[in-house]
Amino acid sequence: MSSVFESFLSTPEMTSAWGDREFIAAMLRFEAALARAQGQLGLIPADIAQSIVGACEVDRFDVTQIVRDSGRAGSLAIPLIQALKETVALLDARASTQVHLGSTSQDVIDTAMALASKPALALMDADLATLVKALIDKAERHAADPVLARTLMQPASVTSLGLKCIHWVAPLLRSRARLRRAAEEALCLQLGGAVGHLAQMRGQGAQVAALMARDLGLRDPSGSWHTQRDRWIALACELGLLVGSLGKMAKDLSLMSQFEVAELAEPGEPGRGGSSAMPHKRNPVACMIALAAAARTPARVAVLLGSMAQEHERGLGGWQAELGEWPGLLMSAHGALRAMAQMLPALQVDTARMRGNIESLRAVLPKEAAQEWFALDLAEQAAMQVRQQLQSWRMQGLA
Amino acid sequence: MSSVFESFLSTPEMTSAWGDREFIAAMLRFEAALARAQGQLGLIPADIAQSIVGACEVDRFDVTQIVRDSGRAGSLAIPLIQALKETVALLDARASTQVHLGSTSQDVIDTAMALASKPALALMDADLATLVKALIDKAERHAADPVLARTLMQPASVTSLGLKCIHWVAPLLRSRARLRRAAEEALCLQLGGAVGHLAQMRGQGAQVAALMARDLGLRDPSGSWHTQRDRWIALACELGLLVGSLGKMAKDLSLMSQFEVAELAEPGEPGRGGSSAMPHKRNPVACMIALAAAARTPARVAVLLGSMAQEHERGLGGWQAELGEWPGLLMSAHGALRAMAQMLPALQVDTARMRGNIESLRAVLPKEAAQEWFALDLAEQAAMQVRQQLQSWRMQGLA
Amino acid sequence: MSSVFESFLSTPEMTSAWGDREFIAAMLRFEAALARAQGQLGLIPADIAQSIVGACEVDRFDVTQIVRDSGRAGSLAIPLIQALKETVALLDARASTQVHLGSTSQDVIDTAMALASKPALALMDADLATLVKALIDKAERHAADPVLARTLMQPASVTSLGLKCIHWVAPLLRSRARLRRAAEEALCLQLGGAVGHLAQMRGQGAQVAALMARDLGLRDPSGSWHTQRDRWIALACELGLLVGSLGKMAKDLSLMSQFEVAELAEPGEPGRGGSSAMPHKRNPVACMIALAAAARTPARVAVLLGSMAQEHERGLGGWQAELGEWPGLLMSAHGALRAMAQMLPALQVDTARMRGNIESLRAVLPKEAAQEWFALDLAEQAAMQVRQQLQSWRMQGLA
Amino acid sequence: MSSVFESFLSTPEMTSAWGDREFIAAMLRFEAALARAQGQLGLIPADIAQSIVGACEVDRFDVTQIVRDSGRAGSLAIPLIQALKETVALLDARASTQVHLGSTSQDVIDTAMALASKPALALMDADLATLVKALIDKAERHAADPVLARTLMQPASVTSLGLKCIHWVAPLLRSRARLRRAAEEALCLQLGGAVGHLAQMRGQGAQVAALMARDLGLRDPSGSWHTQRDRWIALACELGLLVGSLGKMAKDLSLMSQFEVAELAEPGEPGRGGSSAMPHKRNPVACMIALAAAARTPARVAVLLGSMAQEHERGLGGWQAELGEWPGLLMSAHGALRAMAQMLPALQVDTARMRGNIESLRAVLPKEAAQEWFALDLAEQAAMQVRQQLQSWRMQGLA
Repeated sequence: MSSVFESFLSTPEMTSAWGDREFIAAMLRFEAALARAQGQLGLIPADIAQSIVGACEVDRFDVTQIVRDSGRAGSLAIPLIQALKETVALLDARASTQVHLGSTSQDVIDTAMALASKPALALMDADLATLVKALIDKAERHAADPVLARTLMQPASVTSLGLKCIHWVAPLLRSRARLRRAAEEALCLQLGGAVGHLAQMRGQGAQVAALMARDLGLRDPSGSWHTQRDRWIALACELGLLVGSLGKMAKDLSLMSQFEVAELAEPGEPGRGGSSAMPHKRNPVACMIALAAAARTPARVAVLLGSMAQEHERGLGGWQAELGEWPGLLMSAHGALRAMAQMLPALQVDTARMRGNIESLRAVLPKEAAQEWFALDLAEQAAMQVRQQLQSWRMQGLA
Repeated sequence: MSSVFESFLSTPEMTSAWGDREFIAAMLRFEAALARAQGQLGLIPADIAQSIVGACEVDRFDVTQIVRDSGRAGSLAIPLIQALKETVALLDARASTQVHLGSTSQDVIDTAMALASKPALALMDADLATLVKALIDKAERHAADPVLARTLMQPASVTSLGLKCIHWVAPLLRSRARLRRAAEEALCLQLGGAVGHLAQMRGQGAQVAALMARDLGLRDPSGSWHTQRDRWIALACELGLLVGSLGKMAKDLSLMSQFEVAELAEPGEPGRGGSSAMPHKRNPVACMIALAAAARTPARVAVLLGSMAQEHERGLGGWQAELGEWPGLLMSAHGALRAMAQMLPALQVDTARMRGNIESLRAVLPKEAAQEWFALDLAEQAAMQVRQQLQSWRMQGLA
Repeated sequence: MSSVFESFLSTPEMTSAWGDREFIAAMLRFEAALARAQGQLGLIPADIAQSIVGACEVDRFDVTQIVRDSGRAGSLAIPLIQALKETVALLDARASTQVHLGSTSQDVIDTAMALASKPALALMDADLATLVKALIDKAERHAADPVLARTLMQPASVTSLGLKCIHWVAPLLRSRARLRRAAEEALCLQLGGAVGHLAQMRGQGAQVAALMARDLGLRDPSGSWHTQRDRWIALACELGLLVGSLGKMAKDLSLMSQFEVAELAEPGEPGRGGSSAMPHKRNPVACMIALAAAARTPARVAVLLGSMAQEHERGLGGWQAELGEWPGLLMSAHGALRAMAQMLPALQVDTARMRGNIESLRAVLPKEAAQEWFALDLAEQAAMQVRQQLQSWRMQGLA
Repeated sequence: MSSVFESFLSTPEMTSAWGDREFIAAMLRFEAALARAQGQLGLIPADIAQSIVGACEVDRFDVTQIVRDSGRAGSLAIPLIQALKETVALLDARASTQVHLGSTSQDVIDTAMALASKPALALMDADLATLVKALIDKAERHAADPVLARTLMQPASVTSLGLKCIHWVAPLLRSRARLRRAAEEALCLQLGGAVGHLAQMRGQGAQVAALMARDLGLRDPSGSWHTQRDRWIALACELGLLVGSLGKMAKDLSLMSQFEVAELAEPGEPGRGGSSAMPHKRNPVACMIALAAAARTPARVAVLLGSMAQEHERGLGGWQAELGEWPGLLMSAHGALRAMAQMLPALQVDTARMRGNIESLRAVLPKEAAQEWFALDLAEQAAMQVRQQLQSWRMQGLA
């Protein structure tokens, strides 16, 4: 759970992913996988491994107490591992010394971050697919529908709504591809032991890592990345870029939804986008959420980039700042994406008003300017680009 | 509650202040004060005011449901006011139309922000007093104790630990004064009605505001500040400056606590600053928390400054971004302050090592440089400044 | 000079203030004042002081070479002081050892920053006065002219243009007062010597500082602030707040200037706001400059806040980052302020269109909503607030 | 040229790349390529194309005047194109109407940005190669040299300097690959005409673009990207990641170069890293520059991400903010990279001191902890990883 405001700025899935219970459960998945791998390789006896794995159930733990103790300890891992040892000891006294063997706090926490982020990104990939589809539908349907093109917030010429849709969707298609590639790189197991060289694993560190990575469905990065954060923060940058592109679309939609422009409107439904004072209002709340995310996310990326200078083998402050910011990044990004993906398929388009706004402008311009820059058939030029682009995407399997 | 990581980066008081229940309770305080004031001025009948006030108890509400509905509504106020009307209707059917009369979502939310921030700032003021006292004690005790002064991370000359303490505490004293002034300005009632002019209050808007401000212990700003955020964000800037000064001190302490320097050490206690892998470790966890806050806070201030361009009479996205960032700002700031205030009184100082480090340097320098720049009695020059400064603060009642 | 783009985003005065020659000249003013004060107090012979002062003319120096050498040296001060010693030696061989006596690089650079910033802030204060006056005139003239009030980018009710002007100008009045106070605090002499205690000044450090401060027209802060940056960065925050308020106004003006809204327009003149492609365009270029500044400035403030954790007695990287960001902060802020101050007096207001937009809305609303929320006489409620506010400012001498 | 401080925080190549003359020259390359392409395709007569191309020499223009006029115009393109038309008219009166045909301000400016960035990135690629090579040499030479590993700024165990080098260089290798890919995507021609559909090019827009892209050595993105900034800002993110990794290395080096640690030292040479007050100082100025860049760059990336929400077909403020920030991004990044690349080959390593620091720690630890965590032969574990990694890079042609 996060602050009360994330309830409308994010999604239930994303706020719960970073809640106490879920995150402690992800940490326990790491400890179980570690014991399983070490058992398999004979680093610890198989029955002891079994006892440890059996203890790694979140329901066995007083999550609230562990989280409370983390404040004093300066890390979530310390009280959890202490509690895990005690829990294991109840099952098998000898086993407790074999818990977390050769590993370190950052191993379990970084891996849990990756474990929590993986389904979060899958969720976003699916929402992105929905949003892309809706925009491509609109691009197709409105390929040649004329609408004012505006530069520096003033009418500049005529384009088509379809081309505007193409311009909204193209960056999302690129984001989807780049996000997948960045996630592939970044969603790694972390396993370095105390200072990165896994000396406590008696030469079998690499094999432990390989087994754990397969077990947990994460990439094996061949070496620790305790203070090499570039792949992880590259993923954050991609989320920043996605939110930037969503914000651009939301900005345009909110401008085109102004009463005086009225070319587009978010769908109205009971309980959605109303006002506590003014019953006549219909607020563009999906755009609001995307714009809020666009205002917040760049700074979050900046903290993450700025925290890369983590000292030596584990940073003091920088790593912790990164942990603190990461959940908010995903919360904002998913909030924005979900809001737009849910709204867009039902976006209302008023093609008559689009034409009407062009006509109003033509009426006040010198005839020559009206003809050169605001002829309705300029939309045809735009439509040609729409059709070419759609065909090209279809050939690539993207549309 | 916030993400699992705030459990060690912030304080229980501050994370709970922005939890669902506490914030809804603050919103209800606004609604009760509004009804009370309107009842007193005859804008609504006294018994109806009484019914509304009676309903404004957080226990009467399904907080979880309200928060959940806020996602769809795009605001916390809409489902709360709906629920409040329903609750009031149970007590007094006529009264429900008089709920929230002439007010707007932003009135209740902004005021609740101020109500939640006021005790938070009082808590910080008290922690600041503790920290200042501890530093002044250290300045006094170590006024003339020589220690290396370092510039660009290299030894530069000799100063005294007392003067270093003076340089750590002076910005905190200034922050305390500036924070009080900024809070005095910023902790305002928000009451503007739908678009800022309180037209629905039949000419008695100013009186309603005056009564409410007194009732709630907030300043009456004489007019709405829905999209004039300068005083509010000025308070955020002050928090940013405070965290910056705490970060500077934490940076110095962590450098002076390195094993090879060993002039200072955070106190060691069971359960504090240990390591999950290495039993010999004693980590400077208070500094860690302050440094994490120092890495995160500037970006949060940037979001708040960047969100000031809120459109017209209520912003789309900017205001909501501000709401989203504010709790994190206070969480980080209090986490950092509390950590340092609790640790500092027990900070361990090794004056012998301080001298030893100077001697080690003198041993490798040409005699002339050693004498000009690293004579131990340079600490006396520093001590004179310490004593003057302490006396000056005492005369101002600051020390 | 700054990058080619500041030519339209800033002002000539502000870009030249941070150019090579001007800044070196400010550094030389520090060195001259130091010699003068030390001569007066007998720390150096009077004739030697005279020789040093005589050498401190920027025309005597190869500015380009000094700036080029600063790259290798890691500081502007080192090659300048070297060159100053050589120049002084030409005049008086004995004098060259007395140059920069007991001071340090940061003393001269920080003081030069304050010297360069002082007239820059005076310039901004004057532009702020112009802008405030223009807005107050508009508030008065349009006190009761009805205009749509808009929330979340949708019409919400009716207000007056005068009240909108009041809401734009009030934060600027507060900014002006706060900026003066912050400048008063921040524009300090820096004089700490190598590590802050002026030990090389034989007990007369405080007197040297007092004389220099008076000579240079800066505040004497009673002690060095080499790594206590709070007052300096507090001034940066104030600039951030000012730009935020300018950005809010620019956002509103640009929205109200859209072709479909057409309530306001920036004045059109030859060579101003045209388009390279579209002769019919009239772009709101003053708003553009203010909005660009509003997008850039928060991040600059964040760097400054984030650079406060400067190590020990002089930071490695943090101080230099601060130096690098400061000029851009003032360039953006003045660019935005000047653009708005020059444009605002000639802002075109179309009161008929303002009414027309209200009428268009009333025409499509249910009669009851039209009457309750969009009656033209709601502007009278707003006008009352305008008049009260103006009177209150007049009584305080602000309007 | 940029502010006086970039003289030591950046490089001459990078500050001049964004100077007035160089940028205007890049803009003229666009105009020449446009005329050439249009001439080739028969959109304008071949001799007219020739006249335009002939006029596009920066020496024919009063650069200072053009830059000065850009302030009023709100764009560099407007006065340049005006001046180009006048220059062309002198050569060929008919030709002047064919200048800039079917194009727009943003086409020429965005393309000039790409043209200026391309050699800048090539320069960085070469410096990156130098730095990588130097680090790989160090990794090899010191593969098994024991050094303290430190976590949370406290000794944690023993590793090898070689492994530390591997951890510094691995992110740089990844950055180099990612930067090339991002540059390949981002260094595009911009050609959209007034509003993105090139309607003024009589159906030959795509061919004009293809010819121009080949001519200018840029990618043809098949369509305009006036307000789709994702590829461009993705490149900025990569620069942010590179600076983050450089900052991490600089942080470590500066910590290991402290007098009390003394394991590493930047090379000392005349005029490099000295002090204006203290002749004994040797400051780590390369680290200083990299750390300053690491403090500044994340905020710059944040502005760029935050400016992505550019309105409609050309943004008001957002695009201009992007233009303003971009040069500083490259200046900081190259400053940091160049400083580290020049320093690293001559970095001084004191292996005896590295061992000495371990011994000092062992002397104060319980024997068991000393043996488990601080045995010198732990460096062998690290060395194995070093050798494996180097071999793997060699097989990939990376080392």
